[in-house]
Amino acid sequence: MTHTTEADCRALDAADPLASLRDLFEIPDGAVYLDGNSLGALPRATAARVQQVIREEWGRDLIQSWNKAGWIDLPGRVGDKIARLVGAGAGQLVVADSTSVNLYKVLSAAMTLQSRERPAARVIVSERDNFPTDLYIAQSIARQFGATLELLEADKIEQRLGADVAVLMLTQVNYRTGALHDMAAMTTLAHAAGALAIWDLAHSAGAVPVDLHGADADFAVGCGYKYLNGGPGAPAFVWANPRHTERMDREQLRQPLSGWLGHAAPFDFAPTYRPASGIARFVCGTPSVLAMTALECGVDVFAAVELAGGMAALRVKSIALGDLFIARVEARCAGMGLALVTPRDAAMRGSQASFAHTDGYRVMQALIERGVIGDFRAGDPSAARDGSADPSLGADLLRFGFTPLYTRYVDVWDAAEQLHDVLESGAWRDDRFARRGKVT
Amino acid sequence: MTHTTEADCRALDAADPLASLRDLFEIPDGAVYLDGNSLGALPRATAARVQQVIREEWGRDLIQSWNKAGWIDLPGRVGDKIARLVGAGAGQLVVADSTSVNLYKVLSAAMTLQSRERPAARVIVSERDNFPTDLYIAQSIARQFGATLELLEADKIEQRLGADVAVLMLTQVNYRTGALHDMAAMTTLAHAAGALAIWDLAHSAGAVPVDLHGADADFAVGCGYKYLNGGPGAPAFVWANPRHTERMDREQLRQPLSGWLGHAAPFDFAPTYRPASGIARFVCGTPSVLAMTALECGVDVFAAVELAGGMAALRVKSIALGDLFIARVEARCAGMGLALVTPRDAAMRGSQASFAHTDGYRVMQALIERGVIGDFRAGDPSAARDGSADPSLGADLLRFGFTPLYTRYVDVWDAAEQLHDVLESGAWRDDRFARRGKVT
Repeated sequence: MTHTTEADCRALDAADPLASLRDLFEIPDGAVYLDGNSLGALPRATAARVQQVIREEWGRDLIQSWNKAGWIDLPGRVGDKIARLVGAGAGQLVVADSTSVNLYKVLSAAMTLQSRERPAARVIVSERDNFPTDLYIAQSIARQFGATLELLEADKIEQRLGADVAVLMLTQVNYRTGALHDMAAMTTLAHAAGALAIWDLAHSAGAVPVDLHGADADFAVGCGYKYLNGGPGAPAFVWANPRHTERMDREQLRQPLSGWLGHAAPFDFAPTYRPASGIARFVCGTPSVLAMTALECGVDVFAAVELAGGMAALRVKSIALGDLFIARVEARCAGMGLALVTPRDAAMRGSQASFAHTDGYRVMQALIERGVIGDFRAGDPSAARDGSADPSLGADLLRFGFTPLYTRYVDVWDAAEQLHDVLESGAWRDDRFARRGKVT
Repeated sequence: MTHTTEADCRALDAADPLASLRDLFEIPDGAVYLDGNSLGALPRATAARVQQVIREEWGRDLIQSWNKAGWIDLPGRVGDKIARLVGAGAGQLVVADSTSVNLYKVLSAAMTLQSRERPAARVIVSERDNFPTDLYIAQSIARQFGATLELLEADKIEQRLGADVAVLMLTQVNYRTGALHDMAAMTTLAHAAGALAIWDLAHSAGAVPVDLHGADADFAVGCGYKYLNGGPGAPAFVWANPRHTERMDREQLRQPLSGWLGHAAPFDFAPTYRPASGIARFVCGTPSVLAMTALECGVDVFAAVELAGGMAALRVKSIALGDLFIARVEARCAGMGLALVTPRDAAMRGSQASFAHTDGYRVMQALIERGVIGDFRAGDPSAARDGSADPSLGADLLRFGFTPLYTRYVDVWDAAEQLHDVLESGAWRDDRFARRGKVT
């Protein structure tokens, strides 16, 4: 693709079977938005639907909407729609809380199951540059269960899966590098060691085909505001393999966040907790109806995806966009201080490409000023000091996400051209791009 | 007030210094909405503000709004506004998650503190008809800490506060009966026994004056969708007395839901959790910006309340509405099977009145059909079977909430008249009012 031209990109867009999906989103004029892996763009249907929920369901019908408008069914109804995207069955996945809170629930459930069956297995294994909230929650659960959290680089995990490992907890697509784990293979390895496999789908649900049942995974959580386009801070989701919820039923095991909406009969207002059967016990408190409504609008976009070829077609485009970007950046920005940290092999990456640059923050700010919106992720200084670790852990990254729902080939072309211009001109050295305060 | 006339009620409304606050809400024509204690009415500002956040902050400015629009500051910014309503200081209260999840955090923190200082104190004491989710979460925490949850009727709590009690956990206003605990007195009793006092303000924040610092409370949680008018399933809030967060800082104690937004430097993406100091550590995952925006609109109504006399003026009206309702119902519905379960003494109740009726569900459905919207709360059958318990625990209740922000005296008059008509006519016996399926 080194010899691709801008005209070629326009031709690819014209021939793209998914091109019309972009019309389902509000994309600001002139923006090249390559940060849908952090915050998905606004679906065109969302504003009006949320308005209707506010004015009619809340404002006019008030409390009656819990039944009349089906608010009470939202966790399961939206959950069923997400289940179709991740290879889960109907009634097996619910929308609830945040990814962090859901991870706490499933890690606790997994450790409880293991402490009954394999009490000597006291290690949670995860990846060293897993998204920090996953590690922070795992640290808390490890402390609570008297277990140990071991963080390894991706290529060291397989050899670590011994009899002392209770849980393997991985994010399917690495938030920094975009590297994609083979869920089925890693789950099989975990099971062979007697461990349970928990998958965080934050950077894969809605971006790459996911098959939780095919992989025979144990638990999964995921995020509503990235590739599912549910809006800033959208609720998250949680799935458990039915073999575990059935066992929890049999042995009266509970996840610890035993809120009233996970009760078998919440409106009986009984003083003693009795968990709902199946995944419903993973619902806790009363969920935000506005937030769930926006998430449902985001997920409903995938009904159009199904008509246009489904997740497989989305994956084909995602790979093509990523390949094009990597090729264009390497052709145009050679010798300008960029180093690809994302796997070049498309089969081994999600829907993003990340490049290390020592002044990544400034370069990204300069790009954003030109309307190319990716994001910056700081490296971990402790990894940079640790000679044994993969040096990419310490690197500052420019991160570009390709949401195939609304990203065009010409957007990718433009982004690479702008990146070239910023680097070649030295525009990023300007003081106004210096790092200060909070960043997202 | 037995001899009050409808004209008197209109005169009371005309003279009401808070009357204009009703204009800040969208109340459906013809409705007498007495369920703001379950779902607050829609503030007039909310729909447009949420629309702006969706179209401009999310749709147009996308990821940049985390900084540019101050999304990242929402938990503390809205928290500070709520703090003013509950006697907490600025920077001491954050909006996050649900009431259930926040209760889990503070119960865990309190039990951790106590297990260091008073390891023999292994009992959590609460009220038998506390809202069930509080009890379910406390059951989970008790199991986790090897402690015991003891549930008592309100008048038995004081004598139970011995040296073995670690935590007294109470909801300030009882969700069924509307009975109001004396927060300062109960907290003093708890402290005298060495226990920590956790308060759930779900039915008091925004309805009655609350003074967490004056009472020297230890922890508090509360609900955003009742008297704070934040919309269905609005996020909740959590407060900790600074003496505890300071001690948690000193002794490196954590609440267990250690998500990334409670980290001291979330955007460093460091692999090890280091809690933010103060209350900020009680934030966990990424919060819904749409839900927090609607909550902020609800809370902003209280800026107008401050100009109109503040929480003290609100309390005066709340009491007057409750007194009027009780007097009118007892005058008009004598001998019709109703029994007041709410304290008659206004100083001992919150902003609701509940009446037991053996066919409460049908009566409430008939009232709702006439536009008088209260709600129904089922009694606990186990309490009815237990001869030692207060018989009101087993009773089915008609529950009427008086949100002084938008409830008029004439609404209370009309509600009592309609209740009389429903009961006298026997309209509630109609089959269409029979109980079926889910109820809220």
